[in-house]
Amino acid sequence: MKNLEYHNPTRVFFGKGETDRVGEVCAELGKKILLLYGSGSIKKTGLYDRVLQRLREKNLEVFEVSGIQPNPRIDKVREGVKLCKEKNIEVVLAVGGGSVLDSAKIIAAGAVYDGDPWDFFIDKAQVTGRIKLVTVLTLAATGSEMNHNAVVSNDETMEKLAVVDPHIFPDVSILDPENTLTVPRDQTVYGIVDMMAHVFEQYFHPTPETPLQDRLCEAIMNTVIEYTPRVLANLTDYDARATIMWCGTLALNHLIEAGVEGDWSTHRIEHELSAFYDIPHGAGLAIVFPQWMKYVLDIIPGKFAQFTERVWKIPRNGRSDRELGLLGIEATRQWFSEIGAPITLRAVGIGEERLQEMAERATRKGPLGSVKKLHKEDVFQILKMCL
Amino acid sequence: MKNLEYHNPTRVFFGKGETDRVGEVCAELGKKILLLYGSGSIKKTGLYDRVLQRLREKNLEVFEVSGIQPNPRIDKVREGVKLCKEKNIEVVLAVGGGSVLDSAKIIAAGAVYDGDPWDFFIDKAQVTGRIKLVTVLTLAATGSEMNHNAVVSNDETMEKLAVVDPHIFPDVSILDPENTLTVPRDQTVYGIVDMMAHVFEQYFHPTPETPLQDRLCEAIMNTVIEYTPRVLANLTDYDARATIMWCGTLALNHLIEAGVEGDWSTHRIEHELSAFYDIPHGAGLAIVFPQWMKYVLDIIPGKFAQFTERVWKIPRNGRSDRELGLLGIEATRQWFSEIGAPITLRAVGIGEERLQEMAERATRKGPLGSVKKLHKEDVFQILKMCL
Repeated sequence: MKNLEYHNPTRVFFGKGETDRVGEVCAELGKKILLLYGSGSIKKTGLYDRVLQRLREKNLEVFEVSGIQPNPRIDKVREGVKLCKEKNIEVVLAVGGGSVLDSAKIIAAGAVYDGDPWDFFIDKAQVTGRIKLVTVLTLAATGSEMNHNAVVSNDETMEKLAVVDPHIFPDVSILDPENTLTVPRDQTVYGIVDMMAHVFEQYFHPTPETPLQDRLCEAIMNTVIEYTPRVLANLTDYDARATIMWCGTLALNHLIEAGVEGDWSTHRIEHELSAFYDIPHGAGLAIVFPQWMKYVLDIIPGKFAQFTERVWKIPRNGRSDRELGLLGIEATRQWFSEIGAPITLRAVGIGEERLQEMAERATRKGPLGSVKKLHKEDVFQILKMCL
Repeated sequence: MKNLEYHNPTRVFFGKGETDRVGEVCAELGKKILLLYGSGSIKKTGLYDRVLQRLREKNLEVFEVSGIQPNPRIDKVREGVKLCKEKNIEVVLAVGGGSVLDSAKIIAAGAVYDGDPWDFFIDKAQVTGRIKLVTVLTLAATGSEMNHNAVVSNDETMEKLAVVDPHIFPDVSILDPENTLTVPRDQTVYGIVDMMAHVFEQYFHPTPETPLQDRLCEAIMNTVIEYTPRVLANLTDYDARATIMWCGTLALNHLIEAGVEGDWSTHRIEHELSAFYDIPHGAGLAIVFPQWMKYVLDIIPGKFAQFTERVWKIPRNGRSDRELGLLGIEATRQWFSEIGAPITLRAVGIGEERLQEMAERATRKGPLGSVKKLHKEDVFQILKMCL
């Protein structure tokens, strides 16, 4: 176990009906609100009206930026920052999934920064503060609601980059599983792949003696595997949605990573895929992760064997760590496929053409990962295995 | 799963050498420090000198209150509060185990309250704020380092009562497993019983559909069961101590209880035992818990069966939930005994004499628990089973 610092200041309200707190929560933080949302699905579901009503009951002044896309773009963030500065916005209220939340984090930070918010992503500037930040989550996936990460894409430079900074924990996040009952099947699946991938990134690592962290990861993985069929059989099953939602939050609120050196190379590789091809993040992860696992299996075969036994419940039966680990990797790939995620690049229309270019981009700041340092050639090999 | 609010603002520094942060951590919060500690064992181990040196390097003004006992007394808290007010202390720095930390929490709150700090325990006053609060933990047990609970005893009234209030989360807690290497065997065991008991209180509950919470609890229990023999075989095994320490923190930082209705009647019963007889809290818990389990087994037999299978790894083999649950309860009792905890009242010198009186006191504010509402007669029965 490594030394660790843990501090998560986000206040979470979780459960049925908690959405109605949004007015009082925002009113405690400021009078001028920027409401940020995505494609408008919250208008169809009635969530938009409900949130607006609660804000108005508290006499808050509401401005809006909408149209945040999956793989959110820096242009929209810039638009939000501009409005915050013009109108002296005090609270950014994100209503949506990870894309909206991540955009909101950078808008809130950009509102108190003189330069271009893209500077935060290219290490030209550090986040030093932000205006207040509240989220109402509508998609269980990224964990953005209780973490200090934000991932944003830049179409001009074809980059998808992350900011990781303690200033961008939300002040308050409202997690009402009822707001996820209308999420379509494919997005539900991508969200589930995303949370499983988050656990993988923090479970497969080179740090010795992390028994509690391992078991916390396994707790989340076993629960996701148990409840995914229930959610997919009935997308409006409240208890199943609630369970998956809480799994998504705990999968990436930094707790399970406390004391370990997470890997994260698969996320970095996937970010190139979605930067180049704009595929859903969860789809890219389902394709890359099993191949990354095979590529690094021989570095930590014991961990993969443990994964196979404890998560996939495949008994050892005299097998070596490597043999057992391979079965777990195959079970993972099979499971992604069964729940409806793609498991090859060709399935999402990606061929060999730009693999070298993506490998180059993924590693331009240096090799990736902690289990095995991945250089350009390694990433290229993994991407080829994904075809 | 119930609706939940989760917010844990404590910043944790965990690991070897983190003790040396204490100077900078305190200096960021204030200039005048009240150093609070127990019987003086920190002088023998050198921790006292080390902490004082770090504080002096930052030119902090240090006052002291020492002699905090296990089952800490309100008198010492009053002494601390008085000194805080006289000297305008800005930071209470607790160096010790749960007793020192709990006392520090109430001293910090009492420092900004005009009345007697015992008022917080008898619902005569609510905590509305506090001065700054830093802890350096030396005993893995209570979880006080990252929670909002404090338990203090009053010799005059023979009461042992709790304050639960969000204001008393520490600002910063330093968890350096090296500071636990000198904890003697018996205290190590009582600490381990305490953390297991905390998990039990939050695992055995009547809330339906809490699969993730269940598995998080099992993760902690399985880890404690795996690592306890290692710690007891070698009290200076750093990795084992570190693992147990992190288990103790996560066992009661409110995370595993988020979304469930914990029971906590065993703690309330035990508080009477240690209020009347001043026995170690962990000893009382080891005695009472298995009997409470038997008493409520028939209310949630499925949960006890799950406990037996997942925690004690006893397969079902055609047994009913009740039969399987009983085996788990017996395994728990056996395990407490094996690691060196008492499992009967007589073993700690307690007879039948005052059981009625304790049952009366435990329930005077109303029945206990969530699994089964325990009235005076129930508590008396459980205590009799403990003889």
